[in-house]
Amino acid sequence: MKKSLVSYVLGWVLVVLGAMLIPPMVIALIYRETDYIYFGLVAVSCLLFGLIATRFKPKNAQMNAREGFIACSLTWILMSVIGCMPFWISGQIPRFIDALFESVSGFTTTGATIMGTDRQIEDLSKCMLFWRSFTNWAGGMGILVFLLAVITPLSGQSNMYLMKAESPGPVVSKLIPKLRGTASLLYIIYAVLTAIEFLILLISGMNWFEALTVSFSTAGTGGLSVRNEGIMAYDGHYFWQAVITAFMFIFAVNFSIYYLIIIKKFKQITKIEELRWYFGIYFIAVLAIGIDLMIEGNMNSQLDIWHHTAFQVGTFISSTGFATYDFDTWPEFSKMILLVVAFIGACAGSTGGGFKVSRIIILVKSAIKEFGTTLHPNSVKTMKIDGKAVKPETIRSVHSYLSIFIFIYLISVLIISVDGFDFETNFTAVLATINNMGPGLNLVGPTKNFYDYSIVSKLVLIFDMLAGRLELLPILFLFDKSCWKSK
Amino acid sequence: MKKSLVSYVLGWVLVVLGAMLIPPMVIALIYRETDYIYFGLVAVSCLLFGLIATRFKPKNAQMNAREGFIACSLTWILMSVIGCMPFWISGQIPRFIDALFESVSGFTTTGATIMGTDRQIEDLSKCMLFWRSFTNWAGGMGILVFLLAVITPLSGQSNMYLMKAESPGPVVSKLIPKLRGTASLLYIIYAVLTAIEFLILLISGMNWFEALTVSFSTAGTGGLSVRNEGIMAYDGHYFWQAVITAFMFIFAVNFSIYYLIIIKKFKQITKIEELRWYFGIYFIAVLAIGIDLMIEGNMNSQLDIWHHTAFQVGTFISSTGFATYDFDTWPEFSKMILLVVAFIGACAGSTGGGFKVSRIIILVKSAIKEFGTTLHPNSVKTMKIDGKAVKPETIRSVHSYLSIFIFIYLISVLIISVDGFDFETNFTAVLATINNMGPGLNLVGPTKNFYDYSIVSKLVLIFDMLAGRLELLPILFLFDKSCWKSK
Repeated sequence: MKKSLVSYVLGWVLVVLGAMLIPPMVIALIYRETDYIYFGLVAVSCLLFGLIATRFKPKNAQMNAREGFIACSLTWILMSVIGCMPFWISGQIPRFIDALFESVSGFTTTGATIMGTDRQIEDLSKCMLFWRSFTNWAGGMGILVFLLAVITPLSGQSNMYLMKAESPGPVVSKLIPKLRGTASLLYIIYAVLTAIEFLILLISGMNWFEALTVSFSTAGTGGLSVRNEGIMAYDGHYFWQAVITAFMFIFAVNFSIYYLIIIKKFKQITKIEELRWYFGIYFIAVLAIGIDLMIEGNMNSQLDIWHHTAFQVGTFISSTGFATYDFDTWPEFSKMILLVVAFIGACAGSTGGGFKVSRIIILVKSAIKEFGTTLHPNSVKTMKIDGKAVKPETIRSVHSYLSIFIFIYLISVLIISVDGFDFETNFTAVLATINNMGPGLNLVGPTKNFYDYSIVSKLVLIFDMLAGRLELLPILFLFDKSCWKSK
Repeated sequence: MKKSLVSYVLGWVLVVLGAMLIPPMVIALIYRETDYIYFGLVAVSCLLFGLIATRFKPKNAQMNAREGFIACSLTWILMSVIGCMPFWISGQIPRFIDALFESVSGFTTTGATIMGTDRQIEDLSKCMLFWRSFTNWAGGMGILVFLLAVITPLSGQSNMYLMKAESPGPVVSKLIPKLRGTASLLYIIYAVLTAIEFLILLISGMNWFEALTVSFSTAGTGGLSVRNEGIMAYDGHYFWQAVITAFMFIFAVNFSIYYLIIIKKFKQITKIEELRWYFGIYFIAVLAIGIDLMIEGNMNSQLDIWHHTAFQVGTFISSTGFATYDFDTWPEFSKMILLVVAFIGACAGSTGGGFKVSRIIILVKSAIKEFGTTLHPNSVKTMKIDGKAVKPETIRSVHSYLSIFIFIYLISVLIISVDGFDFETNFTAVLATINNMGPGLNLVGPTKNFYDYSIVSKLVLIFDMLAGRLELLPILFLFDKSCWKSK
């Protein structure tokens, strides 16, 4: 591995992180909080070390796939550790493991929290609350993508490796030929959509601080909230909740679709299979749960049923993790639908987590193909998506993704079960973290949190959140000894 | 589809079923039970229809893969329905769905039962108890394999399709060049091993009826027992329980190994990767659970810990489903180990169920390979097992098997969750049936049963048992309309 190359990239990441720590300082100054000092300390250290590291531009700036993965994983670990510092050194989250959990949960857009047992979310200062939501936003589109959009530290293919390692989905496609242009465009679309949500919430009467943080968390499909009750706190405000529903849905769509809207290729949008599946899954899930809740008859009105169902399915499919209702009290069937939807997850190329709709399409199509091949072993049919043939290596990598996913899943459940919590809690805790969703069921349900897990379990769940956000392979390469050899 | 060909095979199956109903009649006569009349009625009907159907030998006896699958699935459905008749028409299991559940559970070697709530297992007459265990035995090696061993109804490749459809594992290999010889040899090894277990239990003092039925259920890795308490009933008899542990382990090993023992190719045995993995998984699981139980400190002695752990891991890895201890009271970590072991299951080509060790090996190896391919997309490495290259279509079919397995799993959990039982119960009920294991956890734990599920849920679980035993594809072909078209 070319260590100088990786440390150069990490240097730039430190610079960006240093810059990212300035907005919470502004918030602290607005609210006259003394906590700005902690952000200042961390920011200065980041900028100092970052500017030193970026002085050493490596001579051979050519990165290979392995170095791209390693650089990406280390970037995310670095972000997580630095992101937790303000929480920890300020003493607002006293234990380091909890602060780290909160930071990883923020950047990976998981939204799982350890707040709510020992101390309430509202006990945090405003700038800390802002920082939590801001990490959701930054992690949603990715910090390397941001780096590529602004400075493009390396040349040619190297940048593509970094982009691939950080971006979700089985294939990464450029919107426009230039990678830097693609990255900028993604961030512009992202920022504009976030601004629109912010303005709608602001105009409809939400205070600016909550409108801003909620918009950040929705955009990153993160789900960290500034209220202990989360979105349930806005119980009387169905309009706000509906706006959030709509934007969760919007941010879980492949961003290339918004690019197609910009360049007015509307017809092309209707042909995208992933979008059709995504809509289909969403509406079938809403229908099934709505009917189940009608039969159960515990909700007050039809409006309540469809309002809360649309929100909760939106939060599970987009892996946001907000809640307007304690869905843990819903009937088993509704809860199972939510878990299945959470497993499927969002579209590739969105800020959402989960297995991704496009991977599910590939699995379904290749399962159907298997029937044909079993009957006629010599038949050669190529799988097509959006009218284009899917490469055999893409199919193979999706299948491997599924088995690696299941291995990690089972091992995680095994390790955290040592803490002695029940099966439902452990099973959904891993689902909620590896799919970057947030809350699970029972002891990690929407009104509970992850505080009670042991340090070892929290480390496992931290690993799952990172593995989920980076889609398994990059983070696993860290364990490959051969990746660490100097050339 | 050549309907005449399929009905010809089913005719022979009826003849075999008719013959199979004679042993329970003998038991009824020994115990002077009047229930022989029900077995007699069903046996005569089977033989009558069977002999008529086998009179019409089709002119074109050439079967294709599709017809092999369909014939196999229909055989198993026919067996299940006929097998439940004695229970139902005798009134000993009053509801048809329960009788069918019990019969399917027997033939598929699942061992899940609906007995124990409404009425106790001991309330059944001896001949019915015998029949339950006998279905475990017959289903273990398979009725079509028996047919192929005795009469080989069709010619050439057709028989191979039938054998492939019924035999477990990703690839079916013949022990000797002739298919009929292979089938006979399998049944001879099977019968001899069963006889050895029977004799050991008999000589060590178990009464002949229980020794026989326990041996049948162990051999088929079925797990149906003649006692409501199952193997826990032999609580003071550690030797019997240890014998059963050993034979569960033995019957979950690929039978080709016993053939290698017969022909004295001992060196070849040590090279079989599946066997090494199987031993490894077994011993690691025993060690992990043993240590967990030691830490928990609820067991009486070290002997108790290792005795019960060895038994329970044996019952889960072989998918037998016996229990010497209410493992539902064990700590979460131990229970999770058991679930993982149950998911992995037995060796291919054994009577055990589950995902099969050989498939797990292929998944693991291909996941590791994926790391290499991600770094070097153009590298071409072939996967090897036992020193031989694994065909790409085998790898692909194992991957498809995993995704189809997960689809069926999720849909099953979804449907049965309508009954409102908790997540752990539903999740393990599906695991216990689709892996042909038997008991799950919580409400379907080792001291409970499946009685309380609704008719719809029982139908789903019946489907899962059949799908699990026939390894998904054959049973799914029944839903493929094109399979039903006459040519």
